[in-house]
Amino acid sequence: MRNANRRLTLKSRPTGLAGPEHFAEEVVPISAPADGEMLLETLYLSIDPAMRVWISENPGYVPRVEIGEVMRAGGIARVIESRTEGFAPGDLVQARVGWQSHPTLPGAEVQKLDLALGSPLHWIGLLGMTGVTAYFGMREIGAIRPGETVLVSGAAGGVGQVAGQIGRIEACRVVGIAGGAEKCTFLTQELGFDAAIDYKAEADLAAAIARACPNGIDVFYDNVGGATLDAALANLRMGARVVICGRISQTASEALYGVRNLGLLIGKRARIQGFVVFDYHDRYAEARHWLAMQHKAGRIQQRLHVIDDLARAPEGLGMLFRGENTGKLVVRVAE
Amino acid sequence: MRNANRRLTLKSRPTGLAGPEHFAEEVVPISAPADGEMLLETLYLSIDPAMRVWISENPGYVPRVEIGEVMRAGGIARVIESRTEGFAPGDLVQARVGWQSHPTLPGAEVQKLDLALGSPLHWIGLLGMTGVTAYFGMREIGAIRPGETVLVSGAAGGVGQVAGQIGRIEACRVVGIAGGAEKCTFLTQELGFDAAIDYKAEADLAAAIARACPNGIDVFYDNVGGATLDAALANLRMGARVVICGRISQTASEALYGVRNLGLLIGKRARIQGFVVFDYHDRYAEARHWLAMQHKAGRIQQRLHVIDDLARAPEGLGMLFRGENTGKLVVRVAE
Repeated sequence: MRNANRRLTLKSRPTGLAGPEHFAEEVVPISAPADGEMLLETLYLSIDPAMRVWISENPGYVPRVEIGEVMRAGGIARVIESRTEGFAPGDLVQARVGWQSHPTLPGAEVQKLDLALGSPLHWIGLLGMTGVTAYFGMREIGAIRPGETVLVSGAAGGVGQVAGQIGRIEACRVVGIAGGAEKCTFLTQELGFDAAIDYKAEADLAAAIARACPNGIDVFYDNVGGATLDAALANLRMGARVVICGRISQTASEALYGVRNLGLLIGKRARIQGFVVFDYHDRYAEARHWLAMQHKAGRIQQRLHVIDDLARAPEGLGMLFRGENTGKLVVRVAE
Repeated sequence: MRNANRRLTLKSRPTGLAGPEHFAEEVVPISAPADGEMLLETLYLSIDPAMRVWISENPGYVPRVEIGEVMRAGGIARVIESRTEGFAPGDLVQARVGWQSHPTLPGAEVQKLDLALGSPLHWIGLLGMTGVTAYFGMREIGAIRPGETVLVSGAAGGVGQVAGQIGRIEACRVVGIAGGAEKCTFLTQELGFDAAIDYKAEADLAAAIARACPNGIDVFYDNVGGATLDAALANLRMGARVVICGRISQTASEALYGVRNLGLLIGKRARIQGFVVFDYHDRYAEARHWLAMQHKAGRIQQRLHVIDDLARAPEGLGMLFRGENTGKLVVRVAE
């Protein structure tokens, strides 16, 4: 149907994992762009753990998505019609397009892709929020230094794979935690991690970390939280930094895990710090140039886990929380 | 008995609280000082939560006290006989004297008190490890700034009372948590805290903190840990710093409390940091001069909780963990 915008709106708030039952598919007429706006065709959507937070009752640090509202999502799109100066049909852009095929957005909320830095598919992962998050989390919050031991949880996920490779580039010893032998092989064989721990195969994760990091952890880049965080805390070195980037084990959980090992922070003179990448908005360009340069030099790569069709976006969100993706999860909406 | 050293040695390791049953009293001949040593008479002993850690199976960051060894403790003493240059009989000193009446120590481990800064009783609290810990914890780890809201747990204890008063001096709004109405009155009426929360009278500590800190907490100076930490985490402001100085609720506990609110660190861009005052050894003089100056100007005071007799030192250690002291707990061994 031409002139139609396919979209998914929030139907109900999940209490546990999100799935197709929480979203409604609608087809509505395309909204013609007013002055200063533009009409886009969505190409790829990014699926991120934070999206589960946005649809919860009380997200805390961002406005929640309301019932009936188009699901919020970042993505890559092509300009169809522009009434914004500097943009022309055919331009490739990134924006918070939402779960819809043909968003109409204010030009101020749309950014043209610099294809000299990377392809549109790089812009949704490595050069997008995913890569930029790993960059600031590792370098600013983690303050990694050459020779240090870095442990990354959720290491085969979107942010984790970039965080680990940044650690390698900065001459750290990098150990990843992931679920399943296949993901672990991906980490060590394809991404150059020094070691990988399959948490599904370990009865005692803290002991497995101790074996993989015999001198302890200097920086723990945590995307998982809960019991994984507790196991890492048991293995900190003096002066360790724990970066709380995400906590996918807890995000959709109703019974929060109680972390018991915080007392170890005292003797280890260690810190735990949370952050939100938006605070580094003024420095995104710096991060993207660094990441693009490393990628061109062959020192960093990204694996995407692509699923097809806008209608499968809710399923993708569930996959993320069940750990069914290897690499950055994206939905292909159009070519 | 002249020429006798009364001492308490560790008899067995406690699993829960420490008490008299874990120590043995002995009377042994005084050890005559060799060249470079001196014989001391202990006047006051400091009783600190960390002592319970030192006698545990695995203290982590300091060597443990072995069975049969004199219990480790800091204190104030008088020189009886000196074979160390620069020290003479009658000098007042501080040292790790241990739980004994007449220690013989190497001169290098003994420091003469600068009585221009404060009395011997100030040197055991405000100018001792207690005050110096509060100084670096608040100013370096907490990085308090004027106008901020500071919450202190264990506020009527040795470190807590100094930490809170440092916050007031630095123009912070200071709220203390303590057990019982009497301690709370001490905080607000005598030490100038802006508010105090009697945790024993509150069914919901997080809600009580929210009432006392309606704009949230910028710095939480934590001496207690466990459920108190969780309740404070629920009330952090953007950019908050949590200083883990101690965790008296957990130190002698076998079933560690699981902290559930760590996820809030992300949206609040907050950090939790542990520290050990020994790392600031090179700057103790700075801290002592600052604390002495504030005391002389009438802006900071200390309350001591004095118990008499070396034999009661183990009982004092138990009192600390049962919250039976108001102010810094010390044992008077001699005048």
